[in-house]
Amino acid sequence: MNISMAADKKVEQITDMEADFTKWYTDVCTKAELIAYSSVKGLLILRPYGYAIWENIQAELDRRFKETGHQNVCMPLLIPESLLQKEKDHVAGFAPECAWVTLGGSETLEERLCIRPTSETLFCDHWHNILHSWRELPLLYNQWCSVLRWEKTTRPFLRHREFLWQEGHTLHATAEEAIRETERQLETYADLCENVLAMPVLRGYKTDKEKFAGAVRTYTIECMMHDRKALQSGTSHYFGTGFAEAFDITFADKENKPAYPHQTSWGLSTRVIGGVIMTHGDSSGLVLPPKIAPIQVVVLPVAQHKPGVAEKAGELVSRLRAAGLRVKGDFSDNSPGWKFAEYEMKGVPLRIEIGPRDIAAGHCVCVRRDSGEKQTVSLDAIETRATELLQAVHRGLYARAKSNLDAHSYTARTVEEVKDIVNNGGGFIKTMWCGEPGCELTMKEKAGVTSRCIPFDQARTGEACPVCGKPAETAVVWGAAY
Amino acid sequence: MNISMAADKKVEQITDMEADFTKWYTDVCTKAELIAYSSVKGLLILRPYGYAIWENIQAELDRRFKETGHQNVCMPLLIPESLLQKEKDHVAGFAPECAWVTLGGSETLEERLCIRPTSETLFCDHWHNILHSWRELPLLYNQWCSVLRWEKTTRPFLRHREFLWQEGHTLHATAEEAIRETERQLETYADLCENVLAMPVLRGYKTDKEKFAGAVRTYTIECMMHDRKALQSGTSHYFGTGFAEAFDITFADKENKPAYPHQTSWGLSTRVIGGVIMTHGDSSGLVLPPKIAPIQVVVLPVAQHKPGVAEKAGELVSRLRAAGLRVKGDFSDNSPGWKFAEYEMKGVPLRIEIGPRDIAAGHCVCVRRDSGEKQTVSLDAIETRATELLQAVHRGLYARAKSNLDAHSYTARTVEEVKDIVNNGGGFIKTMWCGEPGCELTMKEKAGVTSRCIPFDQARTGEACPVCGKPAETAVVWGAAY
Repeated sequence: MNISMAADKKVEQITDMEADFTKWYTDVCTKAELIAYSSVKGLLILRPYGYAIWENIQAELDRRFKETGHQNVCMPLLIPESLLQKEKDHVAGFAPECAWVTLGGSETLEERLCIRPTSETLFCDHWHNILHSWRELPLLYNQWCSVLRWEKTTRPFLRHREFLWQEGHTLHATAEEAIRETERQLETYADLCENVLAMPVLRGYKTDKEKFAGAVRTYTIECMMHDRKALQSGTSHYFGTGFAEAFDITFADKENKPAYPHQTSWGLSTRVIGGVIMTHGDSSGLVLPPKIAPIQVVVLPVAQHKPGVAEKAGELVSRLRAAGLRVKGDFSDNSPGWKFAEYEMKGVPLRIEIGPRDIAAGHCVCVRRDSGEKQTVSLDAIETRATELLQAVHRGLYARAKSNLDAHSYTARTVEEVKDIVNNGGGFIKTMWCGEPGCELTMKEKAGVTSRCIPFDQARTGEACPVCGKPAETAVVWGAAY
Repeated sequence: MNISMAADKKVEQITDMEADFTKWYTDVCTKAELIAYSSVKGLLILRPYGYAIWENIQAELDRRFKETGHQNVCMPLLIPESLLQKEKDHVAGFAPECAWVTLGGSETLEERLCIRPTSETLFCDHWHNILHSWRELPLLYNQWCSVLRWEKTTRPFLRHREFLWQEGHTLHATAEEAIRETERQLETYADLCENVLAMPVLRGYKTDKEKFAGAVRTYTIECMMHDRKALQSGTSHYFGTGFAEAFDITFADKENKPAYPHQTSWGLSTRVIGGVIMTHGDSSGLVLPPKIAPIQVVVLPVAQHKPGVAEKAGELVSRLRAAGLRVKGDFSDNSPGWKFAEYEMKGVPLRIEIGPRDIAAGHCVCVRRDSGEKQTVSLDAIETRATELLQAVHRGLYARAKSNLDAHSYTARTVEEVKDIVNNGGGFIKTMWCGEPGCELTMKEKAGVTSRCIPFDQARTGEACPVCGKPAETAVVWGAAY
């Protein structure tokens, strides 16, 4: 073994997650090589390993969108200021965060152009031009792109000035159909989170204060991170006919009378990768759910200079790939200790070790990333067993996240109770609420939590609003949030 | 049949392609619903049908890139002006076409930011930060994104201010390896054009005047359109160490001494869709090569109100889909005439008609979009036969395009001969060339053609430069170009 080579590579150390969760998070993002910082504040680089995770999420979502009849399109990057201003609530929400193009080549533009912070206005402008008849409805569109929001503070995946996402935009003949679409797409996101990312979700809709600028109703899924804070992981909006009226989008209905279509939009972004890191990660680094892991299995030959070891390990790689798994064999001359640490840091769900003794015994050793559990597996059965172990890792991750969610979901009847829960580490706290924005604001001021959602599960926790004491009909879940 | 419904849909008329090729082209782009215009000049909307073509091209290229070890990444959208200026030839080439962001939210930026016209500077800035050792080389990166160039004139697919593309960027330890990569990626593009898009290519490299800003050498593939003009369809650049020196990118070589890596980049854009339209299209509209057609087969029931017809047609759709084809069944009540025209306009490679008589006889009628050839096919054999017919359409399209290329590829010894060829409709004209930029310019002024490439095939066509008469060692292909 070439000593100088091994010396090139040192095991990266990360901050203890219990001591400083924020620094642990940033360490994982950079040391697992998910992101790098660029020369422009708030604009990040998704490195190959980070981008591969996004590609796997994209493939999962895109397949679901297409199965339900959605079509991908590409809208322009830039929005003229006059277009952005057509829907008043929308522009009020987004204008403060816009980046503006004022020069094109050597000419000063007559009208400045905003880099899209979201594309409702662009879709509406297009639909105004193409929609004629009820026969063309519904229009079910989606776009994969990046958007820009000029935020003050930034944090990898959770808050970038530029971030990647998909934004779905649809038009329907009736309110009922549009609301069904909004709910269906929320369910698509919930399915992605639970069955692909192993993240249990809380489903609900936002209060007026927290809803999307221009929406009638915003549906949300909220996930609980390891530190018990909430992450809004996907949202779906029903717009009614507000944008259609502002953009003069009409269609001839079955009686040949002009009518406004009902609209939805829904988005999920690279933010969800931050959610995966903060839900499943541990003190050794990233832990990836198998369905989105760029490398699902890493095969590490032990004492690979001995006759037959590299060959047998290579054969294992080929067999597992042929079984449809994403597999890497590491035949470099880095030390076994470095390799173990490296693939733990990168969150590879399953590690397979194979050395001369294993080969002689006709088996290999499989190590689960989630639990560290080791088991000896017969080489004859490795395809089936590796696939089963990956499924077990998914279930293990989901179960652990669900325990965290269940253990830290509370109900409270007074602001004092909410404060006590927050002071004991917090979580998702359900209370009744009178519906007044003032009480929502007071809760934030006094207990430091915001309304995460009005959950679909409206089982009552009491009779009165904990803030004003008036009768309350609505249950709300509160929490600290990213 | 509901008359008012059929009346909703009228057969779209397009300009005769021989009378006005430019207008025919724009008609096809809009009436086949590939694109729509947006509120910002030069920024186009890719509609579902147009974007689906791009998705199919993406899938074909992305698979090839990954098979050769390339990894996708995501670089920022914005480039600080100081970064763009680091490589002098590069900034001179791109600065006049940049769109500039000068305001972020409510603050005027201290340094203005350019929307990427191409990302060499961003990759170099990142590599400066991450590259250390020869062990990390080669770095084989690719990015799928849109770029912005503030051009004066715009034309669907061929020249947008914003366009979609992929840009590959790689670093290598040696010049030889980097040049091999540059040539390999040109071959990947040639393979895409010939074997996927059915467009024969001319391979070569650009003269200094035509090469990419900052490149040592630019390789190109040039395709001949129906009107005999050239379309540059993909380029691959070798940069030497110019950018590495400007951005101070070094690595420790095997002797542990600092060295500059050798760099390449290569790009292919939605422009190639314009090439597909202008190569294969005809007076009925678009003609799509089967491998990228969003709908490869359309099944049209004839007299579908008669018992069993819709069922049998639906069964055909299912069977062909199960065979892996992209199939649409049109069961709408639009007239057969409208349907024929619609799917011809959209360039669907194969149409299958099935009515009561066909069903009774146990067959259906297959009509090829490229040749209009009809044949009766036994229902038992439809999966195999449809697949074969799609392959035949690909071969038919390629053969027709190759005939056009061969019939209009000329050699010339004098400027007068070049002018004569141009006046007779033009094509690809090969002459010798002394290598002087002045002669290149004179050729353009006198004959209206630019150098398309210095072809790999350097078979001599004479001894002297047709412009200055001096001895010439290099053969050049000239032509009018998009």
